[in-house]
Order: sequence, then structure tokens, then C-alpha cells
Amino acid sequence: MAKNAFYAQSGGVTAVINATACGVIETARQFPEKIGKVFAGANGILGALHEDLVDTSIESKDSIAALRHTPGGAFGSCRYKMKDFDSHRAEYERLIEVFKAHDIGYFFYNGGGDSSDTAYKVSQLSEKLGYEICCIGIPKTVDNDLPFTDNSPGFGSVAKYVAVSTKEASMDIASMCETSTKVFIMEVMGRHAGWIAAAGGLAATQAGDPPHIIIFPEVPFNKPAFLEKVKQTTVEKGYCVIVISEGAQYTDGTFLADAGSKDAFGHTQLGGVAATLAQMIKKELGLKYHYAVADYLQRSARHIASGTDLEQAYAVGKAAVELALAGKNAVMPIIVREPGTHYAWHIEDVALSKVANVEKKMPKEFISADGFHITAAARAYLSPLIQGEAYPPYENGIPQYVQLQNQRVEKKLPPFTTK
Amino acid sequence: MAKNAFYAQSGGVTAVINATACGVIETARQFPEKIGKVFAGANGILGALHEDLVDTSIESKDSIAALRHTPGGAFGSCRYKMKDFDSHRAEYERLIEVFKAHDIGYFFYNGGGDSSDTAYKVSQLSEKLGYEICCIGIPKTVDNDLPFTDNSPGFGSVAKYVAVSTKEASMDIASMCETSTKVFIMEVMGRHAGWIAAAGGLAATQAGDPPHIIIFPEVPFNKPAFLEKVKQTTVEKGYCVIVISEGAQYTDGTFLADAGSKDAFGHTQLGGVAATLAQMIKKELGLKYHYAVADYLQRSARHIASGTDLEQAYAVGKAAVELALAGKNAVMPIIVREPGTHYAWHIEDVALSKVANVEKKMPKEFISADGFHITAAARAYLSPLIQGEAYPPYENGIPQYVQLQNQRVEKKLPPFTTK
Repeated sequence: MAKNAFYAQSGGVTAVINATACGVIETARQFPEKIGKVFAGANGILGALHEDLVDTSIESKDSIAALRHTPGGAFGSCRYKMKDFDSHRAEYERLIEVFKAHDIGYFFYNGGGDSSDTAYKVSQLSEKLGYEICCIGIPKTVDNDLPFTDNSPGFGSVAKYVAVSTKEASMDIASMCETSTKVFIMEVMGRHAGWIAAAGGLAATQAGDPPHIIIFPEVPFNKPAFLEKVKQTTVEKGYCVIVISEGAQYTDGTFLADAGSKDAFGHTQLGGVAATLAQMIKKELGLKYHYAVADYLQRSARHIASGTDLEQAYAVGKAAVELALAGKNAVMPIIVREPGTHYAWHIEDVALSKVANVEKKMPKEFISADGFHITAAARAYLSPLIQGEAYPPYENGIPQYVQLQNQRVEKKLPPFTTK
Repeated sequence: MAKNAFYAQSGGVTAVINATACGVIETARQFPEKIGKVFAGANGILGALHEDLVDTSIESKDSIAALRHTPGGAFGSCRYKMKDFDSHRAEYERLIEVFKAHDIGYFFYNGGGDSSDTAYKVSQLSEKLGYEICCIGIPKTVDNDLPFTDNSPGFGSVAKYVAVSTKEASMDIASMCETSTKVFIMEVMGRHAGWIAAAGGLAATQAGDPPHIIIFPEVPFNKPAFLEKVKQTTVEKGYCVIVISEGAQYTDGTFLADAGSKDAFGHTQLGGVAATLAQMIKKELGLKYHYAVADYLQRSARHIASGTDLEQAYAVGKAAVELALAGKNAVMPIIVREPGTHYAWHIEDVALSKVANVEKKMPKEFISADGFHITAAARAYLSPLIQGEAYPPYENGIPQYVQLQNQRVEKKLPPFTTK
């Protein structure tokens, strides 16, 4: 009798995480003799702990295929990190109970850094609790900070969104600068690493093109140098476009977004880093500004997803199932960039023990000497990741994203309370 | 000898204003016996005052065609309203001098409310200063507040951007709400009218779909009712999505964005209306929030422009030239919606004297009884305007927007200083 599989999405969702789900489910369905049903965790690992399982087997072939062009997390995701085994043994025992009750023999966990840690811990259950389960981590994170893999599925689409949006907004301000706005600021995600902000640099195809300044969390914010550069750019170009990472910080590690004042009632100031920067520019240089905060728009913009990213997101889902069927355990499929000037990639795998809790930083050689832009090396790395357009179908002018039935599997166990 | 034409872009630019320029130039080129060269004003009407004219005749057929898929203002725009004739006669006399010096017999002015006023004033020059010029206004504004025309070119594309982005971000928060963000706020343009915010309502295709709340400038902000609705929605749905117009205001006309406190240095608080609303929700309901500020992204997002909007933007440019050639003067082409359930439209024209300084408000019957959503009537009006996708060409993952040469026409007059 073929064992069932458990699949869950973890952490912040992306424009293409459902393409990975599609890869997992479509591939599993091709091997009914080896994999029974795919049960998805409702809200990630919480679905396993609460025995809240979605039966994907009742979804039509078309619905599953439509996951490929649907953003967000089709089954719900969560921010929940499994604690260490020894002090929270009850949680792990509960997982085993649920897996046993639903005859689950495969565990596919789709997430970023924290999730690979959870996947690794679950992979140790075989040994520690004597329950045999094949455990595969599947990479996903817009932060692009997973180690070993050349890039993380989800990142390429955010990168494309940021590059395209920065280019478009730059054309807007360039038209208006003679009599109106002089400075445009684009705030993007990236609390610890500047990968997403760096992608804004792809909007510039020639030297001097906007964005003129990129602010990375990796480079301590130098206020005088920054203001001088804004001033100089507005004099030379008539306007200045800035892309800033939400994690931009001063030398002492204080976030720019937190560095400001409190209001008359003692509340921390409103607004994020773009608002702070805008206020600084207004106060010190007297220039008229506009700013955009891309927030969730950037990571859910399936309408402008990268074709490359979409392909890779599907491929890691497919590979996860293939690795399981090949008898691999406690591994994660990764994207390997092939050498040469023509961009090509293939999938390999790496042990979860190596991935867990390792964060990939942006290399120093990706940031220009003055700290305010990306280098040719960064451009060579980033550019292939945003290539290709992969439009969703539309009806009445709105993308036709699928809403699955998400029918729950009947519960067999008493409730469980997480602490 | 065929007279030359002057064309200028005015006010905030849009994703499709260059499609209008394309319509003007391509059509004018078809009638060389009647229209000589098309000179574009560098930075709108300032280009005429400063004799700063772009010679579009040197641009290739392909470059002009590429304007159709290029956002921003290809020749630069400006925020500059011509003062009244009697007290600022020198400006009008300067216009005549420039028109004479460059043998200009056609004046095409592409803009919103203020611009139709300028176009109307220029149309009076024939009579007042004895210079014969054919003057045609061409509608454009993301605010959708021009009278007579069914809708304003530029609006449909912003509307599509806002509807699509709201839908995508809603799917993101829906995935995460179990353990993370409960409220998402999308701040959109519209200081005086809620047309753009209303378009966010198109993201909801079924009752109860997000966005759950839309805040219009037309409806005085009712804080208790709003907070109650947020609370109730998060209880029922697990999360709440809000679209808010930057012009949202209290009963006394105070903007929400200005209603707050000052910081310790006496500066007005940072951040816009989304940040203010987010802070209110955090303080009063204790819910975790995220917000996006779409700013310039919404009106420059040519990558997700509406096909209908693009077609209409081109059509009004083409019609402007055809009206001039038909001997019409002091008119503006408008979009007329045909009766019936199948959406169809055609172009008519209206006198500039009627258009100038009239603002079209959103009808009361477009806003639901509780003031927090759009009605079926609004949906019927808005939906056709966002239909059709009209993607730009891409290279290396980035849209290929054209940069014209913008070669200047040799000056023949001494400089002029605007006051």
C-alpha cells in the first residue's frame, strides 16, 4: 500500500510558491503505486500539529495546474519554528501520531531558512522516535538567503517586479522633474540582505540611468555621503531615484526606520524607511519627494512573475518528489548554475543538515566601491533570474487565480495545543 | 505651405499618455500636405514659452510607434497653469511670437482639468491677439475627473493596476493571517475623488471577497464605524484588506494624513494616510498590519496597462488631429459609451469652453450604503475600463521602453522669463 505524502508551505509566501506545490502534486500523481494522496498542511506545519489536513486528491487536474499561475499560499502558510527536540518532545510526538493516523510516509516542507531547520528536525524523527519518514526540504524565499542553491525560488519574481517598477517610476519622475518632484524613493523588502534592493539596479541598463542610488543593509548608512550624492544627482540629472532596503541601517546597527523621533504623544514615528529618508531629504536639501512602499505587492505580483523563477519553482517541487522516489532522505533540491556565459541551470541536492540555519549574504563584490550601486558581477548574477514573462490568464481584466476547495481530511485524533 | 503643429503633455503623466502622443504624430504624418512638422513642447507649455521645442520629425517610424508602449511623458510634462489673459498678457504674446517664429498653426494640448483651461485660453488667442491657430485639447488624467468624456485616458490603466495589485496582496495576507498579519492597507491616489480607490473594489469578484473596506474622499471618515468593520471582518474572515484614497478626510475636511501629531521637533508626522490608518488600527485594535503605498508605481505601470485604456488613449490623439483637419477649433475629443450591456464606445467632441474648470465627481450611487464599498453600478461602469492586456516588449527581462532623441528645434527668439 502506497504511503501518503504531507506537503506544507512555510514562512512568507511568494508569487510562485504555488508553482512548487503544483510540481509536487502533479509529480506525485504520476506515481500512484508509490505515493498515495498528497495531504497539504493547512497553514503550514500547524496543519500537521492540529491534524488540519487538506485533501488535494479531490482537486481537479485543471485546478492543480492553475496553481502554477496563482500567487500567495494555496493552503495557507505560517510563521512557526519548531523548538528543539529535547525540550519540546511532545510536539514531535504529536507529528508522529498525525503521520501514523494518516499513513504519511513522505514529508515535503517548502520554505526558507527556518523551514529547512524544521525539515531537518523532522528528518531526525526516524532515528529518535522510530518512525520511518522520508523528509525533503524544498527551497523558497524572496530573501534569496538560502545557502548552496544558486538562488531561491520566489526571489526572481520579486527581483523582476522591483526592476520593472523602478524603471517605470523613474520614467514618471523624469517627465515631471522640471516643475515638480525631484526625488523618488522606492522601499523594498530585505531586512538582513540587500538582494531585493540590488535587483532595483537592473532598471539601469546604461551608466547614469536611474536608480541613481541603492541603499543596502550590508553598507552602513553614511548620511553626509548620501545627501551629497542626492544633491549632485539632482543637479546633473534634474532628479534622483533611490531604491532602499527596509533593513538599511547605521554603523551601530540602528535601523534607519527606527532612528527617528517620537511624536508628541511619545509614539514611535509612523512610516517606514522610505518616509524617514524622504523627511531627511526634505529637511536637509529642501527637495520635493515622492515615495512608494512596495510591501506585499512585490512578493505577490504574479502578473509580472519571472519566467525563469516560475520554471525553477516548479522544478524544485518536481525534484523533491523524484528525490523521495529515488530513496533520498533529509535532503533539499537546489538550483545549480552551469558555468559559461549562456545561462543554464540544473537541479542537484544537498543534505538538510548543511542547509539548516545558514544564511547566504550578498557578496561584497556585488556592491560598487562607493556603496551606492551594484557591480557588473551582480548584474551578471541577477539578470538571468528575471528573464522571461509568464503571464496568468485574465478574465474581465483581472487575473484568473485559482481558489482550491481545500476540503479537510476527517480528523482521527483528539485536539492538540501548541505552547 | 502646411503649418506646423505644437503638441504638449501637461500635469501628472500616465502609463498611456505617450500612446496619445503616438496617435497625434502618426496621424499628422499621414497628412503632410496639411500638417508640416509636429513640434513637442519640452516640459509641456513651458516648452512653448521658452521656445524649447522638440522636433519629432527626425524620430523614426519605429520610435514613434514605440511610444504606444512607453510610460511617462516622452517630452517631459509640467505643472504650470496659464494665468488669466488680462493680467498676464505678456505670456500670451510670447506664445504668439513662438508660434509665429516656427510657423505653428495647430495647438494640441494633452492634459487634465487645468490643461483644458489652458487650451481654452490659447484658443481665444485668435480673437484677442489676431493670430489664427487651431486649438484642440486632448483628455488625460488618472483622476478620471474630466467632464463630458465617459472616462479619462490614463485612468483605466491605474484602475487595472490597483485592482490586480489589491487582489494579489489579498491572496498573500489570506495565506499568512493565521499566525501573522491581520490587516493589509493599500494607499492609492485620488486627493479629491475616489475613482482610483473604487477600482480596488474590482478585485472582489464575489460578495465577501477582499478588499473588505474602501475609504473614499467623498465619504467623511467615520472612525468608530471603520474600526468596528475592521474588527468584525478579522473575526469573520481572519484578515481584513483596506483600500484607502490619499484624500480620505474627516467630516470637517481635515485629511486623515494630516490629522495626526507632530514629532518632538515639531515636524508634521512622517508617512501618508496608510501609515496613519495602520497606527490607528494597531493602537485601537492591537492588530498586526502591513501597508503598501503605490504612489508613482500605479500611474506608470505600463507593464499592466489596460488594453481598453491604451486603445482609447491612442484614439483621442488620432481624433484630435482629425478634428483639426476637419476645421474644428477649441474642442476636445471625448469618449462616449454606447448604451447596451455589451461595452462599446466612440469618439465625439465637446467645446473647450464647457470643459474648462469643471470637475466630475463620483456619483453617490457608486458607493454602497455603508460607505465602505462600491455598488453594482460602479462595477458596471469600471469593469470595461480595465479589460484587455497590452504588454510591452521585453529584453533581458525588462520592458523595452523607448527613449526618443528629443532633438531641439533651433531657437529664433531671445529668452523669455516666466513670472
